Amino acid sequence: MKRIKSMGAHKFSIPEIIFGRGSLDYVGTCARQLGARKVFLVSDQGLEKAGWVARIIDTLEKGRLRWFYFSNVACNPRDFQTEQGAERYLAEDADVIIALGGGSPMDAAKGIALVASNGGKIKDYEGANRINKPLPPMLFIPSTAGSGSDISQFAIITDVERRVKMSIISRTLVPNITIIDPLILETKSQELIVAAAIDALAHAIESYISRIASPFTELQSLRAIELILAHLPRAFRTRSLESLEQLSIASTGAGMAFSNAGLGAEHALAHSLGGIFDTLHGLVHPILLPPVMQFNLPACLDKMAVIGAMVLGRRLESPEKTALGGIERLREFCEELGAPLHLRHIVRDKFQIPDLCKMAAGDVCLLTNPREAAWNDLVRICEEAW
Amino acid sequence: MKRIKSMGAHKFSIPEIIFGRGSLDYVGTCARQLGARKVFLVSDQGLEKAGWVARIIDTLEKGRLRWFYFSNVACNPRDFQTEQGAERYLAEDADVIIALGGGSPMDAAKGIALVASNGGKIKDYEGANRINKPLPPMLFIPSTAGSGSDISQFAIITDVERRVKMSIISRTLVPNITIIDPLILETKSQELIVAAAIDALAHAIESYISRIASPFTELQSLRAIELILAHLPRAFRTRSLESLEQLSIASTGAGMAFSNAGLGAEHALAHSLGGIFDTLHGLVHPILLPPVMQFNLPACLDKMAVIGAMVLGRRLESPEKTALGGIERLREFCEELGAPLHLRHIVRDKFQIPDLCKMAAGDVCLLTNPREAAWNDLVRICEEAW
Repeated sequence: MKRIKSMGAHKFSIPEIIFGRGSLDYVGTCARQLGARKVFLVSDQGLEKAGWVARIIDTLEKGRLRWFYFSNVACNPRDFQTEQGAERYLAEDADVIIALGGGSPMDAAKGIALVASNGGKIKDYEGANRINKPLPPMLFIPSTAGSGSDISQFAIITDVERRVKMSIISRTLVPNITIIDPLILETKSQELIVAAAIDALAHAIESYISRIASPFTELQSLRAIELILAHLPRAFRTRSLESLEQLSIASTGAGMAFSNAGLGAEHALAHSLGGIFDTLHGLVHPILLPPVMQFNLPACLDKMAVIGAMVLGRRLESPEKTALGGIERLREFCEELGAPLHLRHIVRDKFQIPDLCKMAAGDVCLLTNPREAAWNDLVRICEEAW
Repeated sequence: MKRIKSMGAHKFSIPEIIFGRGSLDYVGTCARQLGARKVFLVSDQGLEKAGWVARIIDTLEKGRLRWFYFSNVACNPRDFQTEQGAERYLAEDADVIIALGGGSPMDAAKGIALVASNGGKIKDYEGANRINKPLPPMLFIPSTAGSGSDISQFAIITDVERRVKMSIISRTLVPNITIIDPLILETKSQELIVAAAIDALAHAIESYISRIASPFTELQSLRAIELILAHLPRAFRTRSLESLEQLSIASTGAGMAFSNAGLGAEHALAHSLGGIFDTLHGLVHPILLPPVMQFNLPACLDKMAVIGAMVLGRRLESPEKTALGGIERLREFCEELGAPLHLRHIVRDKFQIPDLCKMAAGDVCLLTNPREAAWNDLVRICEEAW
């Protein structure tokens, strides 16, 4: 990533996208396109209960494909789960991996694909561009409009021993195909819809101000911000299919943006929080996003004013006022959606903040943050968020 | 394409993009990524003279790659040229195809890749989705900001016997990687810059109003229209690198849009004109685009008003007035760039119009036109353009 930046060149790469109501019907066709004879399906109990796992299996059987179903995946997937999954993938002699779920099953599926094909332990691949051998074909079906894992070259896996959420980043982690069917969102709870959408909003904002943003990612970031601001309140109140569909489009665009432009200090902190406290990822953004934006302001005033103008619906007297007004309004926006706004709501003791920040300072997401941030800068951000 | 539409699902698929000044330096690395040992390089004399062919060969040799250079490609590439190229590709035992050029060398390279891997004659593959076997890896380097061939699943090849420009459309015609280096545009003539940019504008407008446009293609179409309107006049006057770079971004976005949403009646007619008269493709759009837009107006008034508002910089009293005002202003915009505005400037005899329109009525691009158009509707459009 760094070398490409120094040349003034930007990479933009996304999977093949199949988008729309009912697009789930294409799972069998797409799996066969990828050469499947036996599919390794990764999902979780929530999606089993909602009937989606049975629906996928039915589609696979109609397409005369064999399958193995793996559901041993936690929210914030663990290192050992990907290693167990990889063992099982090899034992079952499967040839294509399908993930159905939010960020956790999708990232777990990436980890399984990685370990199954490249061997070793998942932590061997922590960081950027450390994967050498090709992965088995991957077909992803996101069940939330947020993580962007179905679009991105990121996989976030918890190292249980170190209590760290590792970021693994590689072009080969981009799935071959993503099937995005907004109908799946209708069976999701209000809380999950909000948490996922605010995760997507954080992706959009952090990628927009990233050091390696390009015209191709900026376009996607801005559209995602616009759509989430416009449609999340209605999705929260009514869960109408139209508004959920717009959140899907937003989350997909935000995925395109952050996969190619990277993220920033907010996600670095969010990963550390998740590693230590196993917090639901979507819950931390309303807490961290405003103070991180405030910290980044001097490094990207013009872009922050663009975001501010979108949040406020107008520009104030100066770019700085617009940017600050936008951050303030964004905080209210999250509050109106019932999101927790203070770090003390999820961290038990202030005492833990320095460790948290030292860990975040080592996260690869920090490399693309627009403003240099040392661990004690992150401590100040956390104090602000307390 | 049709089946997917009936399900309410949209496909969106693009190559890996490497964009930026100096990105040409990545040619060797990317070719090796694609598994190259011997590269088959397709380009033309214009690019040889400007020194770009030598530059590419130098980069390949530095990467210790063998190469064969093929330049037997006409403007509007011919069927037999793709077949000769395929024979040569096989004889040389090459394994990756690199195209450097505008639409003609790039489409020729697609034709060569297709015949070399799938056999037979190029005309066996005319139409949509008729390619069964995988193609050799393709790495494209566009030298104009217009054709979008480096992004798209289209290849346009002239059937010399029938004097028809065949549209060949397939997912497998999307190159693996495109390297877009705006520095190449600096050696292009004013005329070529304008012709290419207006081709991209036509791609953007036709894909925006296409029957199978999706939120992902519409975003790209609108941005492309916006950028071309804003930057083409300056690129025409000054050929500044900044404005050329913006046209590159526009053309790339328009390529993403039309590759996935298709085109319409204007391109159907443009292909027939090119087949019969061997016209430079970019020259026909200023002539055909306004009357085709007028014809399509009743089928997509709201979208045409969106385009109109972009062209005019404001909305008039009604959507219809905005749309019509936009079409009128677009005609002036092309006139100010010195483009020919009447069909009589490129067709010798009115007598030839019915044949031209009958041929266009069979073009696959017509399938996604927002308004049903029979050959006699196309005749009326041509009379309007005369």
